[in-house]
Amino acid sequence: MRFFSDNAAPACPEVLAAIAAANRLDTAYDGDAWSRRLNGAFSDLFGAPVEALWVATGTAANSLALAALCPPHGSILCHRDAHIQTDECGAPEFYTHGAKLLLGDGEGAKLNPDGVGALLATIRDDVHQVQPHVLSITNASEYGCVYTPDETAALLSRDLAKARGLRFHLDGARFANAVASLGCSPADLSWRAGVDALSFGFTKNGGLAAECLIFFDRELVAATRYRRKRAGHLLSKGRYMAAQILAMLEDDLWLRNARAANAAATRLAEAAGAERLLLPVQANEVFIRVTPDEAAALRAQGFDFYDWGAGEARLVTAWDSDPAHVDALAAAIRAL
Amino acid sequence: MRFFSDNAAPACPEVLAAIAAANRLDTAYDGDAWSRRLNGAFSDLFGAPVEALWVATGTAANSLALAALCPPHGSILCHRDAHIQTDECGAPEFYTHGAKLLLGDGEGAKLNPDGVGALLATIRDDVHQVQPHVLSITNASEYGCVYTPDETAALLSRDLAKARGLRFHLDGARFANAVASLGCSPADLSWRAGVDALSFGFTKNGGLAAECLIFFDRELVAATRYRRKRAGHLLSKGRYMAAQILAMLEDDLWLRNARAANAAATRLAEAAGAERLLLPVQANEVFIRVTPDEAAALRAQGFDFYDWGAGEARLVTAWDSDPAHVDALAAAIRAL
Amino acid sequence: MRFFSDNAAPACPEVLAAIAAANRLDTAYDGDAWSRRLNGAFSDLFGAPVEALWVATGTAANSLALAALCPPHGSILCHRDAHIQTDECGAPEFYTHGAKLLLGDGEGAKLNPDGVGALLATIRDDVHQVQPHVLSITNASEYGCVYTPDETAALLSRDLAKARGLRFHLDGARFANAVASLGCSPADLSWRAGVDALSFGFTKNGGLAAECLIFFDRELVAATRYRRKRAGHLLSKGRYMAAQILAMLEDDLWLRNARAANAAATRLAEAAGAERLLLPVQANEVFIRVTPDEAAALRAQGFDFYDWGAGEARLVTAWDSDPAHVDALAAAIRAL
Amino acid sequence: MRFFSDNAAPACPEVLAAIAAANRLDTAYDGDAWSRRLNGAFSDLFGAPVEALWVATGTAANSLALAALCPPHGSILCHRDAHIQTDECGAPEFYTHGAKLLLGDGEGAKLNPDGVGALLATIRDDVHQVQPHVLSITNASEYGCVYTPDETAALLSRDLAKARGLRFHLDGARFANAVASLGCSPADLSWRAGVDALSFGFTKNGGLAAECLIFFDRELVAATRYRRKRAGHLLSKGRYMAAQILAMLEDDLWLRNARAANAAATRLAEAAGAERLLLPVQANEVFIRVTPDEAAALRAQGFDFYDWGAGEARLVTAWDSDPAHVDALAAAIRAL
Repeated sequence: MRFFSDNAAPACPEVLAAIAAANRLDTAYDGDAWSRRLNGAFSDLFGAPVEALWVATGTAANSLALAALCPPHGSILCHRDAHIQTDECGAPEFYTHGAKLLLGDGEGAKLNPDGVGALLATIRDDVHQVQPHVLSITNASEYGCVYTPDETAALLSRDLAKARGLRFHLDGARFANAVASLGCSPADLSWRAGVDALSFGFTKNGGLAAECLIFFDRELVAATRYRRKRAGHLLSKGRYMAAQILAMLEDDLWLRNARAANAAATRLAEAAGAERLLLPVQANEVFIRVTPDEAAALRAQGFDFYDWGAGEARLVTAWDSDPAHVDALAAAIRAL
Repeated sequence: MRFFSDNAAPACPEVLAAIAAANRLDTAYDGDAWSRRLNGAFSDLFGAPVEALWVATGTAANSLALAALCPPHGSILCHRDAHIQTDECGAPEFYTHGAKLLLGDGEGAKLNPDGVGALLATIRDDVHQVQPHVLSITNASEYGCVYTPDETAALLSRDLAKARGLRFHLDGARFANAVASLGCSPADLSWRAGVDALSFGFTKNGGLAAECLIFFDRELVAATRYRRKRAGHLLSKGRYMAAQILAMLEDDLWLRNARAANAAATRLAEAAGAERLLLPVQANEVFIRVTPDEAAALRAQGFDFYDWGAGEARLVTAWDSDPAHVDALAAAIRAL
Repeated sequence: MRFFSDNAAPACPEVLAAIAAANRLDTAYDGDAWSRRLNGAFSDLFGAPVEALWVATGTAANSLALAALCPPHGSILCHRDAHIQTDECGAPEFYTHGAKLLLGDGEGAKLNPDGVGALLATIRDDVHQVQPHVLSITNASEYGCVYTPDETAALLSRDLAKARGLRFHLDGARFANAVASLGCSPADLSWRAGVDALSFGFTKNGGLAAECLIFFDRELVAATRYRRKRAGHLLSKGRYMAAQILAMLEDDLWLRNARAANAAATRLAEAAGAERLLLPVQANEVFIRVTPDEAAALRAQGFDFYDWGAGEARLVTAWDSDPAHVDALAAAIRAL
Repeated sequence: MRFFSDNAAPACPEVLAAIAAANRLDTAYDGDAWSRRLNGAFSDLFGAPVEALWVATGTAANSLALAALCPPHGSILCHRDAHIQTDECGAPEFYTHGAKLLLGDGEGAKLNPDGVGALLATIRDDVHQVQPHVLSITNASEYGCVYTPDETAALLSRDLAKARGLRFHLDGARFANAVASLGCSPADLSWRAGVDALSFGFTKNGGLAAECLIFFDRELVAATRYRRKRAGHLLSKGRYMAAQILAMLEDDLWLRNARAANAAATRLAEAAGAERLLLPVQANEVFIRVTPDEAAALRAQGFDFYDWGAGEARLVTAWDSDPAHVDALAAAIRAL
């Protein structure tokens, strides 16, 4: 019974069916019928005209977005625990040709306006220092916390951030979980809150390999088309990726899958209780305090998960978390 | 009836079946059961210990190989019509951080020892000039011609090439077609002929999205693992790519598919005849002389294909080329 | 008696005097009194508002200009024999983060409108090919030939070049020699002919180490200030470079030095005669046909120079070419 | 009376004399008589065979060293206040093609073994995280503190650092001040303490523009020669830089100049007294506590200097600090 991560979960049946349905000759790269529907589908979803590019990984989506927003001599403000800083082996530096990541703090791996302001204040406006160009946040965050639309919009509304003219990137590897958790519109959590580019994740949420880079500032797409090709991310049979994404959008499958994962996490959180929880559970990740003995006891019962820090464990649910497994783990936690 | 390219053909049934079979939870990235079998499977195929890394595109495979072989201040010798020069939007320059491509000539998009020697002779050995580090060829070539094992081995055997210590990359987007055409062993066409790294293509040959980067010089793999991650090419559900590749290796499916494509091309070549053929047909591409009227006549009968140069057309067959379509096109060419 | 190159000639007395005069405390980097005069001095010289940045080498000036004009996924059209292609060890690729150089031909290392058009026509307008962004020429050329103002302006005036929106860089390592040769205004040979950025050389012409990057499109300077710093080219005691440049501009010293070098070359050209000259001598370089025996005879008399191709020699004069040495070489050539 | 920085001080007379003496024709780049003496001169100074390359700036020296030691997918451990992090506009990221700087803490801008160990412990050894490759320190530090030979050697002697196989770079923009302060041998403070590459600064210490990159691991020089050229840092008249450096080495001018600067700082430190000093004064920088009124009072008397933090000021002395100015400032500080 694995609660390691949602990143290795199977693809959901609708996705596999969509791939099978796309298994006929069509135009290569993104000239096919499926890929050509993406802009429209996402413009509908967001209630605004967008440009949407499929890519195979969240790392590619994030890095392409950052390269579109930040020059090589610029810097990107992000949380110290952001995926782009800790888990992408320097992909942002590779794609931006050496931009610097400027690291901030905040509970639950979330930045806040004061922290952003304080970071900005450390940078003199001269040619000797890398100047800030982009703010990047993750929603839901790496610690399973969500930014509300208001919290998102507040990040760039301060004088300092405005004065510096920051652009705004949202790593949405678990954007579906955030939207499902908040019950808000995707628009409120993105472009209406000032976001210029969104990495919209589908792989963790039931895809096989499919992410979508959404540009609300549509002028960013032109150079990005070249960068995607140049990075080897323009798949020749792109229709299989587009088909996955379209299948996820249909009938709000992306939301249903995310709700299922979130609900499973909520049940684990309820079992853990406030004492044991390190952070509020707002998406599909649960961080709990466990002694080494307790962790060993859970593992002895067949539950797999990551140790996080000393005396801490991370439990991640997915779109397909087996209710029986979740119930079993909840009971085991209660019994600790 | 499309003879545009093999790069948009459907995936073959065995590949889709393998994906479905892999659709269960396993370790993420390349820690899964399928990915861990790749080194062994390719070591068996090549009769030598190799390191094998899946990636989603040929551009990524080529660029990762070149980055492993060439420093940023080096150059890569290739044919003027090589895919890495003309069709990858500068991916080699991106991955190598600015290496230069040094362009040679040769019929059928094939280099030859004299041409390589002549290119090398143009480069002074001083710090003002980018020094040659890598030779890269494509087999089957961009014009559907094949290098024999002897032709391959001869490229680096001259005094000049030896003195410069060139490394050897083989773009094998259609390696299967070359092996099928020659009836030789994969080993003879690669490491026994001096090749250090091979981009072994499966996508054009019946895969959904799967290529394998094979390092015969196994020390190259260590840094490449980081580069693959850093480029956003370490898919979280890598098992789906490994499963495709393993399915293609099983019972020599890769060879059967390639033979089918080659056979279809051969039938078109026979129909075209020596007069009309621009080049000998040795793989799955046929280049023919056609007047604009003749091209229009073919298109009017429902055949789609690329115009190549003035008065030239390219016909490409694939693993799934419908025999009826091939027969029809052969007849139509004969009737011109 | 060395006729190797002008790149190792001594600094002229006015330059050394200017350095000595600047040898007092002032603001660091380019905040000093000398550096702050550069924009004004060059705006006067060119009769138009410009931004002028000192750098220590022509390679840095060229590469910073190209990086300002060309994105990483773009290409730069230049002559096959351009310094940026053959003698800068890939500096343009380094500074542009991997742009491609697209090589054209033309006598005397000069491009012409037809050649530029033909080059442009080889590039499909799609994401698979690196798109052309910049045209770069060298005046005087690497073979000592000059472009007239009309020839310069003609390069980008064709439909194809206009349609592609090319930007224009001028490598002016020997711009002084070109202006001196043509007797035209610096403006006619630069911005009035469409040039966006000029690498204006002073080192070969009597400087110690000083080049000036001139932006006629002044918006290009903002990012370039960061790039210069980032490349380690913002010297802390920049006043010594600015002082050299200002000394060269004063009383047209730059033109007098260039005229002296050109005049010496002209005398050698007259001695050589039309039969022996490979190209017309229009600046300070003379390319002549000499048999190996003749070359040996000249060297035996104490003349040093480069062999160029087989049976060819290059003679370069400088601002300080000793008239006695020039006379002696002229006589020796006549006597061959 | 400026106590802003040593980076804008004049060049010392011996350096100007050496430039004048080098003002005759010689081989270009680093083929001249002066440049060819550098390896020998520094091998003598360090008592070990070294490779020595001149460059014009400390930023270039540091970045070339780091590029020689760290792959693009690696990281460099340095202090949060290191010049390479805060004052070079991302030059290390540019030259290394995107390596990451990993920031540590420590009083006086000095790292210590525990801090290095703690930093290393944060990095998992997997492909998702940028792996540590280099340790870089500055001696004298950005806060005018020095590492002793023992402190230097201790940084890499721990199990963790050994296990990670870190290479060692020393930013010696004020190496002369450190050696002068400690009275130790240059060897003890560099290669005997494990340093692989040293940026040896001469510009702040009386040069016009001259730094020397010293490789104790001589194999690093080969690729660096190309990188230097590629970065536009191979000056055509390099003899002027080599001549400056040789003049500084002669009769220990570099040490005399550094001692003069250090002595001036010591006098200011004595005047300030322990209460007012933020840090011990061990080189040529003095950090003092001053109220805004006190700072204004000093400025009203004609003393210029940087405000550092709130209620803090930085005073920097140089090789040529006028004793009268130093006395005057010392008296003014005492009188506060």
